[in-house]
Amino acid sequence: MNKKRNVYLEMKPLKEAREIILSEFQAHTSLSTEFMPVQDAVGRILARPVTAELSSPHFHAAAMDGVAVRAAATFGANPAAPIELKVNENAIYVNTGHVLPENTDAVIMIEHLNILDEHRIQIEAPVFPWQHVRKIGEDIVATELLFPQNHVITSYCLGALITGGIFKVPVKKKPRILIIPTGSELVNWQTSTAALEPGQVLESNSYVLGSLAEDAGADFTRSEQLMDDPARIKAAVQTAMDGDFDMVLTVGGSSAGSEDYARDVILDLGEVLVHGVTIMPGKPVLVGKINNKPIFGIPGYPVSAIIAFEQFVKPLIDQMKGQPEQARPHIEVEPTRKVASKLGLEEFVRVKLGTVGNRVVATALPRGAGCITSITEADGIIRIPEHMEGIKENQAVRAELLKPSAAIHNTIVAVGSHDNTLDILADELKAGTSNVNLSSSHVGSMGGLMAVKRGACHLAGSHLLDTEDGTYNVSYLKKYLAGRDIRLVNLVMRDQGFIIPKGNPKGIRNIDDLVREDLSFINRQGGSGTRILLDYRLQQRDIDPAQINGYDAEEYTHMSVAVAVLSGTVDVGLGIFAAAKALDLDFIPVVTEEYDLVIPQEHFESSKIQVLMEIINSAAFKKRVEALGGYATDKTGQVIL
Amino acid sequence: MNKKRNVYLEMKPLKEAREIILSEFQAHTSLSTEFMPVQDAVGRILARPVTAELSSPHFHAAAMDGVAVRAAATFGANPAAPIELKVNENAIYVNTGHVLPENTDAVIMIEHLNILDEHRIQIEAPVFPWQHVRKIGEDIVATELLFPQNHVITSYCLGALITGGIFKVPVKKKPRILIIPTGSELVNWQTSTAALEPGQVLESNSYVLGSLAEDAGADFTRSEQLMDDPARIKAAVQTAMDGDFDMVLTVGGSSAGSEDYARDVILDLGEVLVHGVTIMPGKPVLVGKINNKPIFGIPGYPVSAIIAFEQFVKPLIDQMKGQPEQARPHIEVEPTRKVASKLGLEEFVRVKLGTVGNRVVATALPRGAGCITSITEADGIIRIPEHMEGIKENQAVRAELLKPSAAIHNTIVAVGSHDNTLDILADELKAGTSNVNLSSSHVGSMGGLMAVKRGACHLAGSHLLDTEDGTYNVSYLKKYLAGRDIRLVNLVMRDQGFIIPKGNPKGIRNIDDLVREDLSFINRQGGSGTRILLDYRLQQRDIDPAQINGYDAEEYTHMSVAVAVLSGTVDVGLGIFAAAKALDLDFIPVVTEEYDLVIPQEHFESSKIQVLMEIINSAAFKKRVEALGGYATDKTGQVIL
Repeated sequence: MNKKRNVYLEMKPLKEAREIILSEFQAHTSLSTEFMPVQDAVGRILARPVTAELSSPHFHAAAMDGVAVRAAATFGANPAAPIELKVNENAIYVNTGHVLPENTDAVIMIEHLNILDEHRIQIEAPVFPWQHVRKIGEDIVATELLFPQNHVITSYCLGALITGGIFKVPVKKKPRILIIPTGSELVNWQTSTAALEPGQVLESNSYVLGSLAEDAGADFTRSEQLMDDPARIKAAVQTAMDGDFDMVLTVGGSSAGSEDYARDVILDLGEVLVHGVTIMPGKPVLVGKINNKPIFGIPGYPVSAIIAFEQFVKPLIDQMKGQPEQARPHIEVEPTRKVASKLGLEEFVRVKLGTVGNRVVATALPRGAGCITSITEADGIIRIPEHMEGIKENQAVRAELLKPSAAIHNTIVAVGSHDNTLDILADELKAGTSNVNLSSSHVGSMGGLMAVKRGACHLAGSHLLDTEDGTYNVSYLKKYLAGRDIRLVNLVMRDQGFIIPKGNPKGIRNIDDLVREDLSFINRQGGSGTRILLDYRLQQRDIDPAQINGYDAEEYTHMSVAVAVLSGTVDVGLGIFAAAKALDLDFIPVVTEEYDLVIPQEHFESSKIQVLMEIINSAAFKKRVEALGGYATDKTGQVIL
Repeated sequence: MNKKRNVYLEMKPLKEAREIILSEFQAHTSLSTEFMPVQDAVGRILARPVTAELSSPHFHAAAMDGVAVRAAATFGANPAAPIELKVNENAIYVNTGHVLPENTDAVIMIEHLNILDEHRIQIEAPVFPWQHVRKIGEDIVATELLFPQNHVITSYCLGALITGGIFKVPVKKKPRILIIPTGSELVNWQTSTAALEPGQVLESNSYVLGSLAEDAGADFTRSEQLMDDPARIKAAVQTAMDGDFDMVLTVGGSSAGSEDYARDVILDLGEVLVHGVTIMPGKPVLVGKINNKPIFGIPGYPVSAIIAFEQFVKPLIDQMKGQPEQARPHIEVEPTRKVASKLGLEEFVRVKLGTVGNRVVATALPRGAGCITSITEADGIIRIPEHMEGIKENQAVRAELLKPSAAIHNTIVAVGSHDNTLDILADELKAGTSNVNLSSSHVGSMGGLMAVKRGACHLAGSHLLDTEDGTYNVSYLKKYLAGRDIRLVNLVMRDQGFIIPKGNPKGIRNIDDLVREDLSFINRQGGSGTRILLDYRLQQRDIDPAQINGYDAEEYTHMSVAVAVLSGTVDVGLGIFAAAKALDLDFIPVVTEEYDLVIPQEHFESSKIQVLMEIINSAAFKKRVEALGGYATDKTGQVIL
């Protein structure tokens, strides 16, 4: 039985938790100083102000190729009464950078000289004293401040430091962070060779957090991963805290469950400052203090771990370094669908972004803290405050950007039916020089048409069968997008059929088998092209859907259907060949269908879509599609409407 | 004699030059692929699309602590008719992450259980199938595209890659760049121990460019520096081009002067594509092709070198990497003074920026390409197009940002008289946690008052003597800032006096000596407090300025005056003790004067200035000021008006 302990999170709002952390460690986290060769110090922070040892220039220098003169000797020169100068007497040839000869105070550019012969030069205009001369100290004066303390050394700074005679610089040592992954389910993929058992998880958080720590300017050490064993975790934390580390992060076990030991470890060795913050993901974060050093219990879900790091650990590193926290750039966006959220929790919603027409539209990614792809796929994060129950469709809100805004403006937003060839399109776009990205969200064919209608995307993938005449998409466009000027472009012809376990153990032959009592089926969501195709076939065969075991269970993608078959959850599902092939399942073709792109004319004309059209029509794209199997490209690129 | 060769730059506009470079090398610069351990690949670029080897989760997993059940067994439960479940029969305790037991398809959270005893649980609500379950492939499905080619691997990506079973990734090799510094004037500070001779220059460009190349994702090798010897330069280029390098940068000698050999070297080994671009700085840049590889002749002035790199080399590196060129963020700014520029050249004006009132004001830094501090001090760059002769005062223009916009908004803009204690103020500000910066431009006291009047700064340093009553600043404020609500705060009392060579070789005693025929003097610019002080003293002593040798020669800072004395250009100048001390010169005090800060009330109340006031009033600041010598801090921090 689960021995649930009587410990609950004492939830604090984000702002309060951050203030506790930053003020608690303000006095205890100054970094010591080390001297580094200047050329290795880019990105480091000056521990002390640096003043110049040398002036630059350290001599009066010619700033042009020409002759050096005493300016007074040129006064009065004009085209009508030119002045003649004698080479090596009152006019001395110099090149840029040469020392200004004694008794001269100006340079006349070679282009402005009338060279009479080797010994004589004529000039037709006077020069001012110090013209085209770089005077001593013009750039840097010895003893003057080059850079203040806490200045971040850039590539440019190397020039000023070296020129100022500074070859070693006093910089702050990087904070040293130990990351201890904990959890009996974790597998060390660097050493393990066995296949994963159910329940096991490849340990990845320490690498993500370690890399984020390095990005933030810290040094990171990965501890060996530990089982859920409080004694060993405590020993590892104690050793780190007694040693050279400035900060410890344990990962996993930070909540209040029966196998969560981080809290007990911190309480044994020091004090808990925060346990639980009203954010999602990242809620069960734990912050403590041991030997006046910070320790964080980071939640084990990958997105929780990232958000906990960015909200609490990163600001503390910045404070230790004496650097302001840099806010991410942000832009105003509009969610294309209502986004619900829980009152009392500040939610970090990961979104895809793209500029459609004159607004930036946001499509929410999966919300689960366990989905690492919900943040790797994201272009931005919308934060929904604690006091709000969500965001309305088309409500303008702020999104923090994870990618450059230029990339977002160069993104084609595709919303609709899913097809694997969209990934090939995305990859071919990235291979080119256009810098156009393709971002697809999967809501089924009908969802795509609705997104086009709402102006929420540039194009929609669709394979909607007209059950009256057997055509695809055209009649749906007439019905649902009446009055809109729409282009319809064939992307591929593809096989749909039954995805079944390898070897077809249940001996499925055709659609009539779906009603067998020993079979369980998995359906696609209503409105999806695949669902319409199934219903059409059932009607043709006069089969009552209610007879099919699993008709009401819905999945949203072909891959999910294939996964359900692979995992044995179901015996059969309808989907595309590519999905079956990808998971090494068997496939019984039922029909070849048309998969088209629905593109409003105003977007079709844009350079982004024209780049896409070029790729769709390229031999390279068609070749890659055919290599997948289950596709034909005879019509690919044809503009049907 | 200077043997000027008959070679001139064939100037091309910036855009054309860039297009030539990018199109010329498009076909010849693809990078080969290497495999890297995933944890070392952050920042690298995928050479090929990467698809998942494993699904995540790879088993149906409990997403909450609680009991796993078959959802169907819970249907109908409600508070009036709770359903009882039997532990280990139809309800199995699970923790988050556990494998979902066979024959279960949902998890009920522990918080929603009514635990009757060890064997029995009551529930009062039904659950849906798959509630609180992470299904196989919910995050990642084996075989699906994780990231397309040309994707830049981020810290986040490590999570998706490791979780997807990818432990080594195919990435593009970094382009290898050889940088060859050339110039007989260059000194290798890494090996040289001798003091610099006049005419010698510490070689710094290769380190700056190398670091910029690394920032751009290239590997950089520094060649030994070479004299202006075309045979040796040619041999070094040839070896690099025949070898492993993807690109060569020679630095220096890129123009058309008598000691500029880069063009000849390229012509001997390959072809010249571009020589001369209508930009300033950076005009004499040289681009060539040898063995189908790019070679750049980078100008030797440090700012020219940086701009040539950023405009030509960086975009080519990006193209080799298959990455879009990232434009710098930019904001709209207003120059506080007219900025002149040359027709026919696109000028890159380095500017200091700060938010004063509701506009971002820009103050131009020195224009010379030889001033590395003009770019290390800069917050942004204003580009003045070829067809414009400059920018008017208060004309809104775009500035590319070199620093985060938050830093610019947190900057106190000081314009006025120069004093070394402003550097201490700037350093003390950076030492604190306020993140406020101080940016000072030096235009003399009267220039400062005019800047206040124009709303071009937050404060002005001023030491304007009223020659009627011997007071400082107050009467000037009444005259020049009448009607404005102004605070006047004493910063320091400081000694002004004669800055003279060590040992006083000319035996100068007092102001009467200035008219001696054997003495040359250097003056400060009209409107500066020091100039007014001198004129006041001359008048008191009834000395005619015309009698002073050098009265008309003007410098803009105390340090420049001291430099003129140090270099022997003049025998004496009037300035502050700190400047004399900094350059180890002698000093004859003439007067103790008041140096105040002039602060409009609307800025005085701001938190930025309040932070500054705290520092001015701190013991630490006063101690550092007094350590400089020549200052008294008795009145420091007093609000005079």
